[in-house]
Amino acid sequence: MVDIRTRDVFATMRPDLLLVQSRLEEVVRIDYPGVSDLVLGLVRAGGKRLRPLILLLAGRAYGNDRERLITAGAGVELLHTASLVHDDTVDRSGMRRGRPTLNSVLPSGAVILLGDFLFAQSAMLAAATNSPRVVSIFASTLADICDGQLREMFFAHRLDQSREEYERRIFGKTASLFAGSAEMGAIIANAPESAVQALRQYGSDVGMAFQIVDDVLDLREDSSQLGKPAGHDLTQGTVTLPTIIYASGLTQTSDAAIRLEGVVSGEIDEPSEVDKVVEEIRDSGALEAAMDEATGFAARSKTHLAAALDPEVRDMLEQVADVVCKRST
Amino acid sequence: MVDIRTRDVFATMRPDLLLVQSRLEEVVRIDYPGVSDLVLGLVRAGGKRLRPLILLLAGRAYGNDRERLITAGAGVELLHTASLVHDDTVDRSGMRRGRPTLNSVLPSGAVILLGDFLFAQSAMLAAATNSPRVVSIFASTLADICDGQLREMFFAHRLDQSREEYERRIFGKTASLFAGSAEMGAIIANAPESAVQALRQYGSDVGMAFQIVDDVLDLREDSSQLGKPAGHDLTQGTVTLPTIIYASGLTQTSDAAIRLEGVVSGEIDEPSEVDKVVEEIRDSGALEAAMDEATGFAARSKTHLAAALDPEVRDMLEQVADVVCKRST
Repeated sequence: MVDIRTRDVFATMRPDLLLVQSRLEEVVRIDYPGVSDLVLGLVRAGGKRLRPLILLLAGRAYGNDRERLITAGAGVELLHTASLVHDDTVDRSGMRRGRPTLNSVLPSGAVILLGDFLFAQSAMLAAATNSPRVVSIFASTLADICDGQLREMFFAHRLDQSREEYERRIFGKTASLFAGSAEMGAIIANAPESAVQALRQYGSDVGMAFQIVDDVLDLREDSSQLGKPAGHDLTQGTVTLPTIIYASGLTQTSDAAIRLEGVVSGEIDEPSEVDKVVEEIRDSGALEAAMDEATGFAARSKTHLAAALDPEVRDMLEQVADVVCKRST
Repeated sequence: MVDIRTRDVFATMRPDLLLVQSRLEEVVRIDYPGVSDLVLGLVRAGGKRLRPLILLLAGRAYGNDRERLITAGAGVELLHTASLVHDDTVDRSGMRRGRPTLNSVLPSGAVILLGDFLFAQSAMLAAATNSPRVVSIFASTLADICDGQLREMFFAHRLDQSREEYERRIFGKTASLFAGSAEMGAIIANAPESAVQALRQYGSDVGMAFQIVDDVLDLREDSSQLGKPAGHDLTQGTVTLPTIIYASGLTQTSDAAIRLEGVVSGEIDEPSEVDKVVEEIRDSGALEAAMDEATGFAARSKTHLAAALDPEVRDMLEQVADVVCKRST
């Protein structure tokens, strides 16, 4: 059998991703003093563009319709960006993608409105696909994202939360947009309904893997690598999978458990104590256990890529699932 | 000639507006602790529902399609509500519709996310009309609203601004949604294109009148009447039409001009000085001059209601234009 893995997904899709990028840069140009460059900087600093990539690939697997796929791809990337802008304001984060966040250089009111403006622009891109179903997925994905973020705010500080609660939350916050991206791409390309649903499942699993890896990286990597402080989730009171796994192995009255509780509740905020908790989580093996979960989701994502799919595209979608687990930032 | 003004618009449209209300209450139910009641309270405290009313009337004038009109009506009202939620957070307002604002009882991060959630729900309602054109108007209206609010933030403090700048800003902030509501109603009812455009113009003029009246009321009414402090715009540094008119009649070096400048720039914040400026604006005749502008817009709005339109509906749309100028809160 000939090895079909001959085409690197990023190299192959680069021309389309550049068109997505130029579409994005068009729609975020705004004429308020000093703001345009900041927003453009944020949009340019974007990483691997996984959401539009998945959308484009899902479309490429069936029919294709390049112009509308690029429009929708820019839409999902911008929805993601808008959501980050508000999320950073909610968290009062100072750094994102290795750059100062908008909220660290503009009044918070301006950032709220800029985020809204980016939401509006992303919705206009979705509407420009001229597909009511795409728009409907787009809107319900935004609702899912907000739901995930609100759940994080209201419930994520609990150390005794179940994995189901964690998974529900990260589905909303992250996986919903991966799922929606794959689904929208398939719909635009007129894929059969079974393929639309299978690709949605693929996207959802990849998104779950992505967020779990993100949660591991927050504890595993140095601040310089992350472009934001390590252990940020903990100090925000956000309990993620590695911490859930770690906490489940602690005796409730142990020093380590009390320290963890203190950091998560915000009662302990000395950096040395936070670092100690991060070290303890690292040493417990919880990061590896969480990574295994992520790898499991990535493996499951591939099972949804039905044999009917163009083998070259299937291979590229598999590469995306692998990349998600291998990333270090 | 028989008097056709036999049907009061609010009484006639009450059944449809109640359906809009129940649609709204359905979609804002959320299960975060303590939040659902707050959001429901906000949605119930809504005033005259002018935006859905205009949308429903525009649809009623042609064809009708009650179910979809009610869905879209709930969508525009919720878009308006979501935008108020963020606006109050941006302004740090404590009161709205005579009730404490969400941002005065919840952490600002939660309010940002709740506003986003309401935007998402409103977009889902728009998408449920199944009309790409409606969705497209909906999204571009949101962009217009944000643009108007950002212009208010970045430029509205200037006392030497032109009326064109003021009008552009209030079109975005307010009139765009009145215009979009009329347009969406006409589109859903399959009105001919000329009627769609005429109704959009009608909505735009009514919206301009509405905002000018709002700006007058902020200076004319007592705090108890408004449900928020009088002169709020001034202390926020927002220069509105009455103040533009008043300022244009002042000698630049006069005490009154210096006091006005001080209040708008935030350098003067003693309530007694703010009250004095409010009094001076009231005494200058600027409120009446601004009201004349509002009345002019309302009169112009009626000229767009072509003879072809159902006379009963035309009469009701005229009543709406009149109500906007007569309101006192």
